[in-house]
Amino acid sequence: MKHIAESTVRRLSRYLRFLEGEEELGAETISSDDLATLGGTTSAQVRKDLSFFGSFGTRGRGYSVPALARRIREILGLEREWRVVIVGAGRVGAALAQYRGFRERRFNVVAAYDADPARIGTSLNGIVVRDQRTLDADLQALNPGIVLIAVPPEAAQPIVDRVARAGVRGILNFAPTALRVPDGVVVRSVDMALELEILAYALTAAK
Amino acid sequence: MKHIAESTVRRLSRYLRFLEGEEELGAETISSDDLATLGGTTSAQVRKDLSFFGSFGTRGRGYSVPALARRIREILGLEREWRVVIVGAGRVGAALAQYRGFRERRFNVVAAYDADPARIGTSLNGIVVRDQRTLDADLQALNPGIVLIAVPPEAAQPIVDRVARAGVRGILNFAPTALRVPDGVVVRSVDMALELEILAYALTAAK
Repeated sequence: MKHIAESTVRRLSRYLRFLEGEEELGAETISSDDLATLGGTTSAQVRKDLSFFGSFGTRGRGYSVPALARRIREILGLEREWRVVIVGAGRVGAALAQYRGFRERRFNVVAAYDADPARIGTSLNGIVVRDQRTLDADLQALNPGIVLIAVPPEAAQPIVDRVARAGVRGILNFAPTALRVPDGVVVRSVDMALELEILAYALTAAK
Repeated sequence: MKHIAESTVRRLSRYLRFLEGEEELGAETISSDDLATLGGTTSAQVRKDLSFFGSFGTRGRGYSVPALARRIREILGLEREWRVVIVGAGRVGAALAQYRGFRERRFNVVAAYDADPARIGTSLNGIVVRDQRTLDADLQALNPGIVLIAVPPEAAQPIVDRVARAGVRGILNFAPTALRVPDGVVVRSVDMALELEILAYALTAAK
C-alpha cells in the first residue's frame, strides 16, 4: 500500500466524519466544495487527496457518499473493530475511558489498569479498573490492537516495555516523555502542552 | 519572522523539553546526536532545524544548552506567560485544568466555566468552576491569550463565537467538530479519536 502522509490521513479522517454525517442524513452525493468547506480546506486539495485512491467523482454530480466513506474506512483500517486497553486510570486515563468518540469509531476500550490501590476496583463508565500487576498475563487474553499510556512520565517506559513484550504493536502515549519501542511497534504521542506551544507559536508568529 | 512548518515547531518543542532537563542537570553543551536521540530524529535533522535560526553550535563541542534553550523559547513565544481559560468542566475540561504540564510551560489556567449547575462552584485543583453565563463579561477582565474549548460538540461553535467576539485570538478545541473563526483568530483542534485513527492507519499500512 502506498504510504500516505500524516497530513493527508488527518484530512481523510475529517472527510470521513462529514461523510458519515451526510450518510445519516441520507445524502447520496457530496461535492468537493462541500467537503472542502466542512474539512477546512480547498476543493482542489480535496480532489487531490481523493484522486490518490481512485476515482469516486462524477463531473457535475460530485462524489458518492457511501462509496467514498467505505473506501476511506478501508484505507484507514477502520472497517474492523480495534480493541483498546488503557494503562493509567488517573484524570487523563479516566477521561479517555469515557470518551464517546472512541466507541463511535469502533475503538472499544476493553480494560483499564492502575497501580494505585485507591483506583483499582473503581468503575469508569462500566470498565472496572484492574491491578496493573496483572497487565502482562491479561494482555495475552485481551489481545488489544492498541494500548493507551496515561501513567506518570517516569512510569511510562517500563509499561511500554511490558506492553511491547506482550506483542502489542500500537501505542498511543499521553505521558509527556519520549518512549523507546522495538522495531515493528508504532508509538504516537499526544502532548497537550505541545499543542498549546504550537498555538502559542502561531499567535506569536502572526503578530 | 520566517514561517516555520508545524513539524519543525513540534521538534523544536521536543528539543526544548530535553534542553531544559539538561539545564536542570547543569549541562553546558549538548551534541546534535544526543538531541536527535532524545527527540526521536536524526542528527542531520537537528542540525537542519537549528541552522534555520542562526548558529548555536561549535564544531566538536556541540550546542550551548542555555543559549539554545533561550533561543527556542524566544522563537516559540514561550518567554512570556500565557493566560488560559477553559470552557467546559466535564471530564476533558477537568483533566486539562489539572494537567501538570501546562504550568511547567507557563500556560496558567486562570479560570474554568461550565453551563451545568452541578459543576458550577466545584473546585478543579483550586480553580472554582464559574457560570458560563458570565463568560463574556469575565473575558474582558481576564484577558486570556488562549481559550480551551472542552464543551460538547453541539455547544462549541456558539462558545467560539462569544470568545472571538471578546477579542481572544487563540483557541485550542477539544470538541470533535469543525469550528469557524473570524480572520485573525487561530484555532487548533485536538481530536483523540483522530489520533487513534492515524495510529490505526499506521498499523494497517505497515502490514
